[in-house]
Amino acid sequence: MKDAFPMLMNTPRLFAAMKKERLAAIVATMPENVTYASGFWAMSQWIRRGPQAYVLTPAEGGGGSVVIASSGLIDLAADPDVWVEDISRFGRFVIDRTPDAILDSHDSRIEQLMAQEDDGDAVGALVRAIKARGLEKSRIGVEEIGILPQYWDRLVEALPDATIVRAAELFRYARAIKTPEEISRLRKSAQIADMSIQAALAVARVGATELDLARAFHAKTIMEGGMPVLGCFGVGTRSAMTNVQPSECAIKQGDVIRFDVGGRYRHYRADIARNAVLGEPGRKLKQYHRAICVGLDRAIGMIKPGVKVSDVFDACVETVRREGIPHYQRSHVGHGIGLDGYDAPNIAPSNAECFEEGMVICVETPYYEMGFAGLQVEDTMAVTADGVDSFMLSSTELQVL
Amino acid sequence: MKDAFPMLMNTPRLFAAMKKERLAAIVATMPENVTYASGFWAMSQWIRRGPQAYVLTPAEGGGGSVVIASSGLIDLAADPDVWVEDISRFGRFVIDRTPDAILDSHDSRIEQLMAQEDDGDAVGALVRAIKARGLEKSRIGVEEIGILPQYWDRLVEALPDATIVRAAELFRYARAIKTPEEISRLRKSAQIADMSIQAALAVARVGATELDLARAFHAKTIMEGGMPVLGCFGVGTRSAMTNVQPSECAIKQGDVIRFDVGGRYRHYRADIARNAVLGEPGRKLKQYHRAICVGLDRAIGMIKPGVKVSDVFDACVETVRREGIPHYQRSHVGHGIGLDGYDAPNIAPSNAECFEEGMVICVETPYYEMGFAGLQVEDTMAVTADGVDSFMLSSTELQVL
Repeated sequence: MKDAFPMLMNTPRLFAAMKKERLAAIVATMPENVTYASGFWAMSQWIRRGPQAYVLTPAEGGGGSVVIASSGLIDLAADPDVWVEDISRFGRFVIDRTPDAILDSHDSRIEQLMAQEDDGDAVGALVRAIKARGLEKSRIGVEEIGILPQYWDRLVEALPDATIVRAAELFRYARAIKTPEEISRLRKSAQIADMSIQAALAVARVGATELDLARAFHAKTIMEGGMPVLGCFGVGTRSAMTNVQPSECAIKQGDVIRFDVGGRYRHYRADIARNAVLGEPGRKLKQYHRAICVGLDRAIGMIKPGVKVSDVFDACVETVRREGIPHYQRSHVGHGIGLDGYDAPNIAPSNAECFEEGMVICVETPYYEMGFAGLQVEDTMAVTADGVDSFMLSSTELQVL
Repeated sequence: MKDAFPMLMNTPRLFAAMKKERLAAIVATMPENVTYASGFWAMSQWIRRGPQAYVLTPAEGGGGSVVIASSGLIDLAADPDVWVEDISRFGRFVIDRTPDAILDSHDSRIEQLMAQEDDGDAVGALVRAIKARGLEKSRIGVEEIGILPQYWDRLVEALPDATIVRAAELFRYARAIKTPEEISRLRKSAQIADMSIQAALAVARVGATELDLARAFHAKTIMEGGMPVLGCFGVGTRSAMTNVQPSECAIKQGDVIRFDVGGRYRHYRADIARNAVLGEPGRKLKQYHRAICVGLDRAIGMIKPGVKVSDVFDACVETVRREGIPHYQRSHVGHGIGLDGYDAPNIAPSNAECFEEGMVICVETPYYEMGFAGLQVEDTMAVTADGVDSFMLSSTELQVL
């Protein structure tokens, strides 16, 4: 493993969880965790369901990890961002080279990896890697979400003396506490989304459509180095639709605009929400929007290590009710965020967890009322030793245009 | 089911495949096939791994389909694009409504669906839907990719008299022949990608970076109503990296530029490739690029219903070799495209299938030579009764800038 490299994975936390579950190794199989465990961005797996890429991580002291990659992705496995050095490739793929050319370091690494033997297919390569580490009689956790069920069966069959257990939950547990590199990317991702809302608001006027807002938003995300993912853009009563997708519907005077948006920056997600209104807001709108903002502030003000997630939920909902929406109800008021849009913790009444330093969370107080509007404020922040470090550039206040 | 609605699914083809496999019903579980089988775009499932949404489709004559949707997505399940009328919702979610407001048809539909009973969770709702159709002792195909393994186990347990079999392959088979609505969306998607390459070329000059090209490309995709997905943008020798991701690397005089790109338009993928060069191309570049273009033309010229896929592969590779790259080798020279970026058929030597009318395919002749350049032309087209209907706006020729 490369030294002093900005790794994404919270290795100590994953190792602790593996120890508790008595795992000799863990295998990442879904795109988020393959990237998390190695830095390898297995493109085909990110944009499709089915393509296989794995990372085998032995327990602490059990040796280095290995990336299992399709030969067609070998240039991505050779990327300097990948900190796992051992790569097993599978499948036939042809890359030529000019005989007398001097290759740069990235191309040399590709050449070196292509010179390795073709390990057949994804499961074959994984079985081989497990055996090469003497783990064929061990207890191995395999993330059950990304691996094809047929491949799971083949793995179990090929390793009759091993105990293969489902282990997706362990990655989710490890990912809850971010590394400094993750926090840095998440901050930038949130700020790109925040700037993109401002870019969308710059085109908001009577007659502009939801699609105009969406185009301005996504274009700004791209200009700032992000990639679009999620965009709910609703105007007028349409803003009350939870997942409103941008349409040709035009903004009218007095309309509320709701943004619930976020792209990716270097694979890390954003998810924030803001509201605006065209012209002076009426009494109900002002009261309701203020209530969700005060509720959000109350939640954020409470968050620090050791505070119960469910207590923050309760205080948040109670505050929104007291401050102006007496019938306010929610199933959650936020969630972790990382490579996945919903990391732990879920800020819900049934959650017995406490906040911990290093969590990155979205805190939100959405309110959807058909026939009126959808109102939603959502901020992203890191949990610090004594509170939170907000990533936001803009305030939650209702922007009057 | 709504009449005369532009459905995406090739229902007769799916029904025929179900009959052959003696299935009384089939369950879509991955995002592409949930949309395919119902029109329901289950957003959370598209942007994350784990969230569950299903469509149960009984065999021909067995009654209407049912969509199983999380209550948090109910506004998307109520969308006019959804042609399946029976929706089962699961999970707690709160949407308010202004008491005296007159709701539009979309909001009325949301209200109607929220008034239905909460079916508990995804598997519970699916089991209930299966039982409601009297299918609990039947042979049921379930797509094995999108459903969580724990949920598969629960399904099998809850239906002890049913036979549950893996059925992802049946959807892949049905999707190979596109409906007119699919062809229309795929044409637009390919054309957006084509126009976006031209927009990227408009900023290509000495000193411009790969990221400048990428930003111009994606911004154009968004302006034309698409969403970015895939972008390989490489200049100079970096263009030889198969999946080259845009960097700060700047274009120099004489550099080749390779685009292998495509977004989505109304959920349908694009995947096309083009090359340009800054300044007059050298002899080798001209010869090699011409060879891959002639090879592509040879393949496209052969394609019509009844022609063997492997014959097209052989002729294509042989042509590129004869026309100027004697050592040319490939594992495939194209693939189908649809909701998934790789639909059937795979244009590979081992494929015994023939082309059929209604397929939409990408045909490509990539060539990667480290130390020199990556060259790639890729067109998208529909297979017609007597040949192909190309979706492309631009020619494959090497654009000299």
